[in-house]
Amino acid sequence: SNSYRLLILPGDGIGPEVMAEVRRVAEWFRDRRALPIDLRQRHFGLASWQAHGSLMPDETWAEIEAADAILFGAMDSLDQAIRIPPSERRKGSLLRLRKNLDTFANLRPIRAVPGLLDASTLKREVVDGVDLVFVRELTGGVYFGEPRGVETLSDGRERGVNTHVYTSDEVERVARFAFELARRRRADGKPGRVHSVDKSNVMEAGAMWRRIVQRVHDADYADIELHHMLADNCAMQLIRWPRQFDVIVTDNLFGDLLSDCGAMITGSLGMLPSASLSARGGASNRRRALYEPIHGSAPDIAGRGIANPLAAILSFGMCLRETMEMADEADRLERAVDAVLAAGARTADLAAPGKPHLSTAAMGDAVLDAL
Amino acid sequence: SNSYRLLILPGDGIGPEVMAEVRRVAEWFRDRRALPIDLRQRHFGLASWQAHGSLMPDETWAEIEAADAILFGAMDSLDQAIRIPPSERRKGSLLRLRKNLDTFANLRPIRAVPGLLDASTLKREVVDGVDLVFVRELTGGVYFGEPRGVETLSDGRERGVNTHVYTSDEVERVARFAFELARRRRADGKPGRVHSVDKSNVMEAGAMWRRIVQRVHDADYADIELHHMLADNCAMQLIRWPRQFDVIVTDNLFGDLLSDCGAMITGSLGMLPSASLSARGGASNRRRALYEPIHGSAPDIAGRGIANPLAAILSFGMCLRETMEMADEADRLERAVDAVLAAGARTADLAAPGKPHLSTAAMGDAVLDAL
Ligand SMILES: CC(C)[C@H](C(=O)O)[C@@H](O)C(=O)O
Ligand SMILES: CC(C)[C@H](C(=O)O)[C@@H](O)C(=O)O
Repeated sequence: SNSYRLLILPGDGIGPEVMAEVRRVAEWFRDRRALPIDLRQRHFGLASWQAHGSLMPDETWAEIEAADAILFGAMDSLDQAIRIPPSERRKGSLLRLRKNLDTFANLRPIRAVPGLLDASTLKREVVDGVDLVFVRELTGGVYFGEPRGVETLSDGRERGVNTHVYTSDEVERVARFAFELARRRRADGKPGRVHSVDKSNVMEAGAMWRRIVQRVHDADYADIELHHMLADNCAMQLIRWPRQFDVIVTDNLFGDLLSDCGAMITGSLGMLPSASLSARGGASNRRRALYEPIHGSAPDIAGRGIANPLAAILSFGMCLRETMEMADEADRLERAVDAVLAAGARTADLAAPGKPHLSTAAMGDAVLDAL
Repeated sequence: SNSYRLLILPGDGIGPEVMAEVRRVAEWFRDRRALPIDLRQRHFGLASWQAHGSLMPDETWAEIEAADAILFGAMDSLDQAIRIPPSERRKGSLLRLRKNLDTFANLRPIRAVPGLLDASTLKREVVDGVDLVFVRELTGGVYFGEPRGVETLSDGRERGVNTHVYTSDEVERVARFAFELARRRRADGKPGRVHSVDKSNVMEAGAMWRRIVQRVHDADYADIELHHMLADNCAMQLIRWPRQFDVIVTDNLFGDLLSDCGAMITGSLGMLPSASLSARGGASNRRRALYEPIHGSAPDIAGRGIANPLAAILSFGMCLRETMEMADEADRLERAVDAVLAAGARTADLAAPGKPHLSTAAMGDAVLDAL
């Protein structure tokens, strides 16, 4: 068939609540805009453990393999779930999903929303106009490097090791991805600027990263402004003057910390989508993709119907743009979200203290109305 | 002799300018308060390269070895100084200094200064009352781990590697340091709280870190509140709600990024001191120490006499407290700095745009007057 097979994995915590709204929005695009969407859904994580005695049953994995995109809700940290054996944890982990789908490019856009400038702990004039995107390398670095583990030395001390490792082709493909993205964004009137972030003053692998990004730039992307920045300085600059950034490309671990730093710029964690993409390949030349709100499972508010579904809905918007390559439909959804916020609709996380707020489902209704 | 031998290494950039003021302040304590201070001074870094053809001549190293404390200015990144051979760079590097002095505990206090609450990009109500200190492990982790380097694979690709490694005794000593510090700070009316920061959900060495910190706590510091926090979450929380922190203990690399994040809380980088301390040891049971403003060499403003000397002066204050164990004299110096700021004295970095400001030397004068 010519339809896009989208697999919803609601997961744990507030995942099921926000993904119910994503489902309604996706159905709207399927039924009202006649988009070729084949929607499926499976348990994942703790919910799957409870239903099937496995975090990731083989059938679920087969569905994941067959999907054009995964719409992921949230996964519990499993800290409390002590009964789950480690081997089962690894089988069902987000890291396995990323590695097996080879989604090496994790996109995290951070955009100031005019109606929400006061939600941040940063001053309004610092937040206003921010429009940046992280490209975090997602399948390499210290997350997957070997050797790793803890050994006991002959004198009784323990020694814990993890290995940060990148090969030149891994750096090159994520650098190309970032430069291509910067070109695409330039069409919206942006200058086309990439900041590549490393710790090349301390790490040899960081010096290699810097050298390769520069080489890719000079060979094929000389039209894009390239700046190199040390990771510690980048952590500062994100707080000091975030408007200086357009595209930020960095490794898996720095990307984890810096994008969470960046997530605080707008102060509305409940608004931030993400996409994790592989290279194109295979017979159909398709790109594997996983779309996910960055807020996580939020166990403290799970089950109360008050979570903000907009990050998950905007993640579906990224799916329209990246997997289905329907930029007009993605714009349509983003405009609907902007309109809803401009009209004053707020979930609890966005509402001023003491002000009335919408439930998760009512916010979903509002988006559907605006569509 | 019974005097404290203090070695000033002004270094590069704004180092010489700010350390000239430190020198005057140290002389004041020696001459007016009759403190037993033996002050010395040496070139270091680029300045030493220009004067002696070596970043670190052997005599300088001998002076460093013999000193009770190093008062360090700033070191140039050497990015531009391409004529210096790599072996010479390693010899003269800050990392070598840290490793050879075994200064494993890097203290970086971040305190909101009442007169400067508006200097931050964070809102006034978020900054007000912040009083936290980072204890960054400084002699282990990915900064020093082996194997490291870049190799060319048989297929022509390159492979860059750095190794994150900690032994249990390294984690234990920095954890003890943090708990002791939390106890000492509790005396000022603080609750006595330590946040230990790791990435234990991804790194086995991080899980070991967490386990050992917990063990040290349970055995000897059960009176202190201990919280474990993931590094990405900590980057967020520093921006979202910094007042929740008292002592933050973490590894070398996370400490590098997070303390720079933290440095932006108050918005006055020119105000932030640091101390790097070893364990007590040797015949005299002394603690090696290096005191250093965290602002770095700031080449863009070097030589203009406008740098803020307060971070360097407050670093000398930390020397009075930690090396000389003269808390009253340290308090005296900190009160003088507070008084100068309360009276409205501002260097260029602190002054409102268009407002008049003091030179480096005039700020030094103001502190001496207040003393
Ligand atoms: C849950 C955790 C393994 C994950 C990561 O560290 O990558 C998360 O923090 C993220 O950023 O998606
Ligand atoms: C200059 C550099 C090696 C150093 C570090 O990474 O430790 C600096 O950033 C610091 O924090 O003192």
